[in-house]
Amino acid sequence: MGTFARKRFLVLDKPDGQDFTADRERILKALEPEKVSMTYRAMKTLYPLVHDADYKITVTMCPGDNGWDITRVEPGDTTGRLYGLALDLGRTTLELELLNLNTGEVLANFGCVNSQTQFGTNILDRIIAVRESRDNLTELQRLVTGDITGLINKCCEHSGVLPEEIAALVVGGNTTMIHFLMGCDPWLVFQNPYAPVFFDPGIIAAGEIGLPLSCNMFCMPAVANYLGGDITSGLLMTDIDVRSDPGIMLDIGTNGELVLGCRDFMLVGAGAAGPALEGYGSKYGMRAGKGAVRGCRIDCDGNIILDVIGGGSAEGICGTGIVDLIAQGYLSGWINGNGTLNYEASSRIIPVWNQERQLQVPAIVFAETNGEKLYFTQDDIIEFIKCKAAAHTMVATMLDYCDMQPDEIGTLYLSGGFGTNLNLESAITIGLYPDLPRDKFEILGNSSLSGAKKLLLDDSCADRLRHITEMAVYVQFGEMEKFLENMIAAQFIPHTDERLYPSVKRRI
Amino acid sequence: MGTFARKRFLVLDKPDGQDFTADRERILKALEPEKVSMTYRAMKTLYPLVHDADYKITVTMCPGDNGWDITRVEPGDTTGRLYGLALDLGRTTLELELLNLNTGEVLANFGCVNSQTQFGTNILDRIIAVRESRDNLTELQRLVTGDITGLINKCCEHSGVLPEEIAALVVGGNTTMIHFLMGCDPWLVFQNPYAPVFFDPGIIAAGEIGLPLSCNMFCMPAVANYLGGDITSGLLMTDIDVRSDPGIMLDIGTNGELVLGCRDFMLVGAGAAGPALEGYGSKYGMRAGKGAVRGCRIDCDGNIILDVIGGGSAEGICGTGIVDLIAQGYLSGWINGNGTLNYEASSRIIPVWNQERQLQVPAIVFAETNGEKLYFTQDDIIEFIKCKAAAHTMVATMLDYCDMQPDEIGTLYLSGGFGTNLNLESAITIGLYPDLPRDKFEILGNSSLSGAKKLLLDDSCADRLRHITEMAVYVQFGEMEKFLENMIAAQFIPHTDERLYPSVKRRI
Repeated sequence: MGTFARKRFLVLDKPDGQDFTADRERILKALEPEKVSMTYRAMKTLYPLVHDADYKITVTMCPGDNGWDITRVEPGDTTGRLYGLALDLGRTTLELELLNLNTGEVLANFGCVNSQTQFGTNILDRIIAVRESRDNLTELQRLVTGDITGLINKCCEHSGVLPEEIAALVVGGNTTMIHFLMGCDPWLVFQNPYAPVFFDPGIIAAGEIGLPLSCNMFCMPAVANYLGGDITSGLLMTDIDVRSDPGIMLDIGTNGELVLGCRDFMLVGAGAAGPALEGYGSKYGMRAGKGAVRGCRIDCDGNIILDVIGGGSAEGICGTGIVDLIAQGYLSGWINGNGTLNYEASSRIIPVWNQERQLQVPAIVFAETNGEKLYFTQDDIIEFIKCKAAAHTMVATMLDYCDMQPDEIGTLYLSGGFGTNLNLESAITIGLYPDLPRDKFEILGNSSLSGAKKLLLDDSCADRLRHITEMAVYVQFGEMEKFLENMIAAQFIPHTDERLYPSVKRRI
Repeated sequence: MGTFARKRFLVLDKPDGQDFTADRERILKALEPEKVSMTYRAMKTLYPLVHDADYKITVTMCPGDNGWDITRVEPGDTTGRLYGLALDLGRTTLELELLNLNTGEVLANFGCVNSQTQFGTNILDRIIAVRESRDNLTELQRLVTGDITGLINKCCEHSGVLPEEIAALVVGGNTTMIHFLMGCDPWLVFQNPYAPVFFDPGIIAAGEIGLPLSCNMFCMPAVANYLGGDITSGLLMTDIDVRSDPGIMLDIGTNGELVLGCRDFMLVGAGAAGPALEGYGSKYGMRAGKGAVRGCRIDCDGNIILDVIGGGSAEGICGTGIVDLIAQGYLSGWINGNGTLNYEASSRIIPVWNQERQLQVPAIVFAETNGEKLYFTQDDIIEFIKCKAAAHTMVATMLDYCDMQPDEIGTLYLSGGFGTNLNLESAITIGLYPDLPRDKFEILGNSSLSGAKKLLLDDSCADRLRHITEMAVYVQFGEMEKFLENMIAAQFIPHTDERLYPSVKRRI
């Protein structure tokens, strides 16, 4: 085990009357038997650097396509300064961390909104934009590399590390996002015959895509179109590939990804859960940002106590808040199992006008800001239940496929922003997750980012990634026998088969 | 044996409901077990190219630092169009050839003056210019890549081949010229401790140094500072590395390079012969170009019959003309063995004023153009004899070092512009070459260029080059026992020991 990128301090033999070996060959020879290349950029710096440093130099070595690439040469011993960048390249947000690879310390962490959102928050909008004009592909790449450059500069300024001191960049992102990063058209990620440009783009020089770095860039490899490098990266934070009993990793958002496996097998699947899970579609739904209700509970007097991001007045409700609202509403008798609201249960339930359907529908007023009633309608609840059913069904169908019962799962890892911030009890109450003993749940946080960090600090993860992508078998939920049946059964709170949710049953 | 760069037509399995392998991985898998990488540039072109071509594509493969690089992907079967460029990168001139690698046919050949000569024809002037300002290094690289780009465009226009169809560029040039090409400072080629940036710069993408090509560039590796890739390239045109009896390769110009060896050993040496050999220094000396006397003979009536480049009036005399003039003058009794001119021997020998020494010196008037007498003085002759002695001494000293006699040499290969255009009898008459049976001489022409071509057509030459650079041992003439002694003995026409030149003795 070692860090992904490394530095080696070399005290080279000096040339003399017998030894005229040139700098480049002298350095490569000193590193034998390692298989090492030197980038053109690094070679250009050798004179007078090596000579002036009295042949005592430090080389930065980053994995290349075959063996190591020397990406930088510095005078003297600079092995104490070894840095790497981990990037989570998300559809809506980017998060970059600068690490001291010698200590593992995080020196800086900055995030930003993905500027590609100007082409649409929905990834499909961006894909269609590329379909309309190839120039949009160039623009999408330019936008995201611009965002990353901005984050690199922030991290470097914050920490006093120079961009040229960065020894490696590791990126976790889904297949489409990595295609945009590489300036490659992801059309076939979503279209027949579903064979995109790459699952693994290989190691390339970060400078080739316009980043202000001299090091190489490694993108976490995808397993399949819908199971991208963000998920393989996350798997590094689990033990699914090495454990003896089955574990599950679940990343739910607008799309859901599921991995079920152990050291003997690994099944992966993905499906659309629906944007309603992240607060889209409902009038007062919003993404998790300032002013969003991210959690709530209904007390014994029927008051709704809100947890608002930023602490001010509520401006809307995001996915995690909705899960709490539906779970609490169900436990308080405001909502029944099939999602209908009961006017009698609370004065907070009022009729509102549904413009589209041209009728009154019941809605829960979850907040009142500046005299405006913020509500969540019965239609919204039913739409949400469909989404949670889709997520539930992935787990249920995958278990059926393996002829396994939920209680055979040893650990259920929850990754991604939604899974991390969700109230676990509420998620089980509405039947989003299976009703397992709570100590079997493990929340991973932004595991796309943390997996990238892990690889930077432990290069044996590269072998694990290879193993994971080789052993993973992609299964298509739509083609599975019980998929539709499971989906219909899950469109109920918590589930049409209440025996599957004993802990919820006890609480009612 | 195969060509250096190759094309492979691939009929790929198409993706279907079971096989979602991405384009990049599909291509790499089809090429297994070859070790293949794909350039970023090639990867970007995959969609929609591969899909639209119905998964029938041709990949261009160029050797990379480790294994093959796919540098281009084309729809359909384009294996019939495979092209490569061979470049001789000389101090004063560049010559580029475009080859059809399938047939070996030369499709275009263009040359130009090296624009770096604006920094001086002498290579040392350019090195000093870089010492004075690092910007000059950038400028020298820009000039030569500009020249090469111009030649590429000419070759492509002439042949109808597109620059992006070029599958490889192979360059023969001396150590300093390749340093300039790479934008690397060659200061330590000429200065203590004589360990420059590289002898072998490795394989790099031609685009990295600004050439309009998508392929890789391979520079012939040097053996030592003064034995560059131009010489190793030339060795490919000999059998010195495989023959059982000793052979010599000699490349004489302002500097001389010598290789003596056979399959069991290889000694290499280099030294300054002196610019006088190429016509510099003398008032009417000029480089081999239009108007230069490139050959002459003195007939039985004492007339000088000239061979002028371009056929018009003589404007001066170049190195090969001088060798003829001295040889013919010696055979005609105009010049004696130590280089002094005899006024009585010909009316063409007249006194001319030497401004520097403030005295009259005898000179041969070799031509008269528009009433102006073009002459070559006794001082010029003596300077020239010193240069030819330096060249002779390299061979003599290397033979002494191996305890060998001249007649043990099986073949004497003559390479470089001077050696190629020289009249062999004249060169032997003045004692520049040893007096061997004439059928032992083999004239190679521009072997830096032809070696590069040979590698393009036969990649087993890459192994030969590795073997040559490994087995070659550089010896320093200056440190050899008999060097000075040999040098003094050679400063005579043909030599102080006339037994070494029986054929010349017979002609007098």
